[in-house]
Amino acid sequence: MEILTSQSTFVLSDELLEKMDAYWRAANYLSVGQIYLYDNPLLKAPLQLSHVKPMVVGHWGTSPGQNFIYVHLNRVIKKHHLNMIYISGPGHGGPALVANTYLEGSYSEVYPDISEDEQGMKKLFTQFSFPGGISSHVAPSTPGSIHEGGELGYSLSHAFGAVFDNPDLIAACVVGDGEAETGPLATAWHSNKFLNAKSDGAVLPILHLNGYKISNPTLLARIPHEELEQFFRGCGWKPYFVEGFEAGDMHRKMALAMEQAINEIRTFQKNAREKGDDKRPLWPMIILRSPKGWTGPKSVGGLKNEGTFRSHQVPIPVDQAHASNVELLEQWMKSYRAEELFDQNGRLISELAELCPTGDKRMGANPHANGGLLLREIRLPDFRNFALQISSPGSVQGQGTVTLGNYLSGVIKLNGKNFRIFGPDETLSNLLGAVFEVSDRQWDAQVMEEDEFLSPSGRILDAQLSEHQCQGWLEGYLLTGRHGMFNSYEAFIRIVDSMFSQHAKWLKVTRELPWRRDIASLNYLLASHVWQQDHNGFTHQDPGFLDHVASKKADVVRLYLPPDANCLLSVMHHCLGSKNYVNVVVAGKHPLPQWLGIKEAEIHCAQGIGIWQWASNDQQSGPDIVMASCGDTVTLELLAAVSILRKHFPELKVRVVNVVDLMKMQSELEHPHGLSDADYDSIFTLDKHIIFNFHGYPWLVHRLSYKRANRNLHVRGYIEEGTITTPFDLRVQNKIDRFHLVIEVIDRLGNLGSKGDYLKQQLQDKLLEHKHYVQRYGKDMPEIAGWLWGE
Amino acid sequence: MEILTSQSTFVLSDELLEKMDAYWRAANYLSVGQIYLYDNPLLKAPLQLSHVKPMVVGHWGTSPGQNFIYVHLNRVIKKHHLNMIYISGPGHGGPALVANTYLEGSYSEVYPDISEDEQGMKKLFTQFSFPGGISSHVAPSTPGSIHEGGELGYSLSHAFGAVFDNPDLIAACVVGDGEAETGPLATAWHSNKFLNAKSDGAVLPILHLNGYKISNPTLLARIPHEELEQFFRGCGWKPYFVEGFEAGDMHRKMALAMEQAINEIRTFQKNAREKGDDKRPLWPMIILRSPKGWTGPKSVGGLKNEGTFRSHQVPIPVDQAHASNVELLEQWMKSYRAEELFDQNGRLISELAELCPTGDKRMGANPHANGGLLLREIRLPDFRNFALQISSPGSVQGQGTVTLGNYLSGVIKLNGKNFRIFGPDETLSNLLGAVFEVSDRQWDAQVMEEDEFLSPSGRILDAQLSEHQCQGWLEGYLLTGRHGMFNSYEAFIRIVDSMFSQHAKWLKVTRELPWRRDIASLNYLLASHVWQQDHNGFTHQDPGFLDHVASKKADVVRLYLPPDANCLLSVMHHCLGSKNYVNVVVAGKHPLPQWLGIKEAEIHCAQGIGIWQWASNDQQSGPDIVMASCGDTVTLELLAAVSILRKHFPELKVRVVNVVDLMKMQSELEHPHGLSDADYDSIFTLDKHIIFNFHGYPWLVHRLSYKRANRNLHVRGYIEEGTITTPFDLRVQNKIDRFHLVIEVIDRLGNLGSKGDYLKQQLQDKLLEHKHYVQRYGKDMPEIAGWLWGE
Repeated sequence: MEILTSQSTFVLSDELLEKMDAYWRAANYLSVGQIYLYDNPLLKAPLQLSHVKPMVVGHWGTSPGQNFIYVHLNRVIKKHHLNMIYISGPGHGGPALVANTYLEGSYSEVYPDISEDEQGMKKLFTQFSFPGGISSHVAPSTPGSIHEGGELGYSLSHAFGAVFDNPDLIAACVVGDGEAETGPLATAWHSNKFLNAKSDGAVLPILHLNGYKISNPTLLARIPHEELEQFFRGCGWKPYFVEGFEAGDMHRKMALAMEQAINEIRTFQKNAREKGDDKRPLWPMIILRSPKGWTGPKSVGGLKNEGTFRSHQVPIPVDQAHASNVELLEQWMKSYRAEELFDQNGRLISELAELCPTGDKRMGANPHANGGLLLREIRLPDFRNFALQISSPGSVQGQGTVTLGNYLSGVIKLNGKNFRIFGPDETLSNLLGAVFEVSDRQWDAQVMEEDEFLSPSGRILDAQLSEHQCQGWLEGYLLTGRHGMFNSYEAFIRIVDSMFSQHAKWLKVTRELPWRRDIASLNYLLASHVWQQDHNGFTHQDPGFLDHVASKKADVVRLYLPPDANCLLSVMHHCLGSKNYVNVVVAGKHPLPQWLGIKEAEIHCAQGIGIWQWASNDQQSGPDIVMASCGDTVTLELLAAVSILRKHFPELKVRVVNVVDLMKMQSELEHPHGLSDADYDSIFTLDKHIIFNFHGYPWLVHRLSYKRANRNLHVRGYIEEGTITTPFDLRVQNKIDRFHLVIEVIDRLGNLGSKGDYLKQQLQDKLLEHKHYVQRYGKDMPEIAGWLWGE
Repeated sequence: MEILTSQSTFVLSDELLEKMDAYWRAANYLSVGQIYLYDNPLLKAPLQLSHVKPMVVGHWGTSPGQNFIYVHLNRVIKKHHLNMIYISGPGHGGPALVANTYLEGSYSEVYPDISEDEQGMKKLFTQFSFPGGISSHVAPSTPGSIHEGGELGYSLSHAFGAVFDNPDLIAACVVGDGEAETGPLATAWHSNKFLNAKSDGAVLPILHLNGYKISNPTLLARIPHEELEQFFRGCGWKPYFVEGFEAGDMHRKMALAMEQAINEIRTFQKNAREKGDDKRPLWPMIILRSPKGWTGPKSVGGLKNEGTFRSHQVPIPVDQAHASNVELLEQWMKSYRAEELFDQNGRLISELAELCPTGDKRMGANPHANGGLLLREIRLPDFRNFALQISSPGSVQGQGTVTLGNYLSGVIKLNGKNFRIFGPDETLSNLLGAVFEVSDRQWDAQVMEEDEFLSPSGRILDAQLSEHQCQGWLEGYLLTGRHGMFNSYEAFIRIVDSMFSQHAKWLKVTRELPWRRDIASLNYLLASHVWQQDHNGFTHQDPGFLDHVASKKADVVRLYLPPDANCLLSVMHHCLGSKNYVNVVVAGKHPLPQWLGIKEAEIHCAQGIGIWQWASNDQQSGPDIVMASCGDTVTLELLAAVSILRKHFPELKVRVVNVVDLMKMQSELEHPHGLSDADYDSIFTLDKHIIFNFHGYPWLVHRLSYKRANRNLHVRGYIEEGTITTPFDLRVQNKIDRFHLVIEVIDRLGNLGSKGDYLKQQLQDKLLEHKHYVQRYGKDMPEIAGWLWGE
């Protein structure tokens, strides 16, 4: 493989160096200004305490380093005509990114009020860490960002997600050395084994070793150089080191390292694209070791500040109690010589403004960082073509995810490089294997003879066992304007509880920003769910992600529990076509009776909740009891219970309700999908007993419906019982089985007389008999496993 | 540093090799038997389909490799008199660990019914992956285990947690190459920067590269040898490679590698302990590259099996549909020559049994793996000595975590090596800094001049920014019989949602195992909570961990929200002394008015809920309204509201209730701390309006109390509003502030006449005035920030 080694002698001219240094000073000046100043932004007047914010908060430590990186990225973007986005991993780089996008003009284009003049600069400063203003980390409100600071760990997987299927894009990803200690980031270095140099873009990681986290040193800054280099070579990267503190020296080193890195990226891509070289490249990365709080005060109050953890937040306290520090602050700010950088009106002088790329090449204006701008609609096949034929309810057995797999392979075929499936090596186990008939898994490490479905260019990313990576990649992919889905075991999606929360927060906030365009929803398919774990048992049982998601803002989250395969098709079709939501779809993979033909399924899913007339017998009179369910396994048991009830008590009027869209249970005032009280009451009645068989924890249904009039709601669901056992016995242990349901109906109604007592006794005997059978034979009694509707 | 290099020429004798190989065959035989056999355990009769389980499930792939490791660990334990535990990282190594503990006799000691004879072996086989039996991963029921398979990622941090302060202990930690791809495991390699060779034990990681996960190859098995070695050297380990498949060759290599590793561990420890060498050692690790499903069928149905992903679960299907495979199974099982290994009664022959260590040296009987056996009670100082003096409610401002920090330093002083504090670099930020007056942070990487509180022997592990590591280390520390606490930002504890779940599951299951002894509770202190985030904003706001924890089994979880510093002292004192729980304590760090003297706090916390008579005026007549709160900030606002109400409506009878122990809200039938209905009703009344100001999401209170008689419960709490703003404005945006509370009381009562209407208008004006003030000055109106009770 040819590398243009001539480039490694690249020397930054003194003139350009001076200009870049001046630009860097401008960004640093704006960063300090944001943290401190309320007025007098250009320091035209001597600085007074009244010019300083009443409450000075924010983070300085990472900002100068990121400003340094930004100006150097600008240089290579211009020189090499790069298409580049900037991902700011460190928790609190807000001042830096805001400063840079302001300098390049992209900030004022989005926020015209923050104009490129003294008045605008004043507003820029004031809004930072100010009530109603902007946070000290990079946020949705920051132009050019697809990655929020705050919670750490996901920058690198976001960067990879962004460049998948974007062959011209380079994601420059600044990884803080604090963030690098998190688990998700630590494993994200291996993302390079999933990148295709031919059809994907590149990630340029810049590890920013500034040596400290909040108050501790960082691990990677405190191991020998040799170990650090071995670590990254072991992760498959070629590190370029840029280390020091003297500005001129550092500019030269950084410029050289950037040249080398860009040159290598280009060469690898050329080799792959023009020469068909499909060996995994040793991609370049940069390790920037610079002082924390670089260019800040050397010491404050007798304690060293620049280069220590003390520069993490506000280096110099300035307030009533520290009024004399105003002078120190002024001295510090004046060290940047703003008068040389901005004209009298507060605008960056043109000589420096010329250093910026222009138009969409500015990282604050790159459309990939506002993915909705680039979004192409997903093309969806007609889901009806993948339907199971159902002659009558319960007459056919089907497996939800198997049916869905066929549909998903149709989606893959139609969407070229606009759709991907993500999973932690569970796609086959979740029985979505049909997708491998149309696409491989993307994989760029070694392949051996017995391997299946691996190639450098697959549509499916499921070959790393890391839910964090799946979630991070998918988020990056969606945020840059594409479509996708994450399939996971239901229990282990909890691993990304916190990542989901942060993405939901991102979506909530972006909805309030008119310039942020719609992006595709994040779709979860939770398969291999709680109700059948066979040899896995208790560790694999957890339906609580539903509760977690339901706690988020109603305009962002949607929860679907289709009762059978055709409903699953209809629901997933809907989700894949939606925007700006997080959709959670729960579906099993094991054979279950099927209920609805595809037409009925479509109507039922569109309504989200409905009375199943074919299973009900209260049409003339209204019900004596309402039997409701939400989820696949629990619907089977509910219908079996109804079947028993109707056989033994033909005069009993039973209404059967099925819920697909869980948020229907909530009030319309709280969720856009919620039923009005009138609709709810017409389905559930005002006072009849409702036996509700729910897939997850029962209290979720209670809490969604707690304001409804009918207080006779009795919810069954998963109550953390059972482990290694048969499918039916697990239901019995959690009391969602047909027998417990019928017994509850008998107890609740209390008016079924001796016939009721007799049946109850029979069912209790049956439960005992089943228990003994399972203990003896290790499987369910055949007549239970084989039950069909109406028998 | 001296390494006894003579040992590197160690050669395993042929005789011992033969015996170890035979022992390995015995363990493999028992592993296969567990997966398949229902009867005929010694294959005395020709194998029939009826001898095979009706439903064959389980995992073979990892088992032979782990059996291989176990027999080699046994050798070094015996030879070097080691004190060693075995941590099985791969998801499904159950058959191996059960087989080995059975062979060494520790299994039958715990489960006498599974005796060391043919009858016992039959039961051993039957129970595996059988209803009511044991899971296919290592579980609490497995003797010698502190680590459950199932969810992956935590083996290495558990291992480190186990050896902290256990200088003689070695944790042999088998890391599966699938698990190695998870984030938590990836960053856990860096745990070696926190280990003190002098006062801690050692971890011997054994990376088991068997090449496949479920259906994909693994990353670390598919990168060049050079990268793999660099990776681990970069992580600070010295890897010994044991690669191959031929048994004799592999035994010799493994024995040599183990000798070298143990020798190095001993040498490092000697240097540290006798020569005072405190340089971070390059600890040894072993990389075992062996075929997945080693010794299993070479191929099945024409497809290669041993050495491929196809050996992950059950290699040969044997059931009615595959009846002819019985022969293949028999052939496979006979390849282990059980007749040479077990006597006629089914007992391991003495020549092989001699290979096991004896007594507590057997890994299945090591007391460290049943930590309660070693538990020494924690010594707690008198928390009353750390109390704030409160002359009257609201007269003093205090900071909860600052007060707690003093107490915790007292705990550290009293407990030598029996207590540790864990945190992700947030201990100072959570204002627990007093602990650093009595202990450093443990840190074994480079130290520089400006660093604070770092040394190789600290009691506080807060220098890695990883919640996963904190949780994993603490779990390992507790499970081996010590005490500890995890302090975290409230929002980011969600990162370990799933780890918490698995630990809670472990606790639930161990309570049902009489031989598992009580261990100390896992205590969370969630500080820097949702109600004051200043410059951090929305990403740092999430009180939902409470909801998550509340969904677990009631006999395991406890949630405490002390309203002030003295209550925090009392609560934490209680938690630190408790056993077998997960305690979650939420407390702020910012100055707030204090309410209770230490005596009152102690009584209040012991009750968990109470009417605050000093704030109520309904003593004579019963209340017109009940004003309740749970949490520190919300209690301040509630009391301020009550103060306004009592000033403006002196005739209104207000009852003030404070909840410390959230589970009091639940019924006694659902939680051991729950109030009886009678007690609940006597506090909250049957029908009066209850305005409940809650720290977290409001629906949690609704769901805990949904079966209570009084339906007039109106809960306020965090509703996901607000970001960068002032503390009071955040409360206003979420409507938990005093003004919204009073307005709700006026609206709910509806009988306060024109005086009520007038006050409502005044308060609405006040809210508007405050909003403008905040926007203008960036801080709260001073008279609000400075409010004291009774004004």
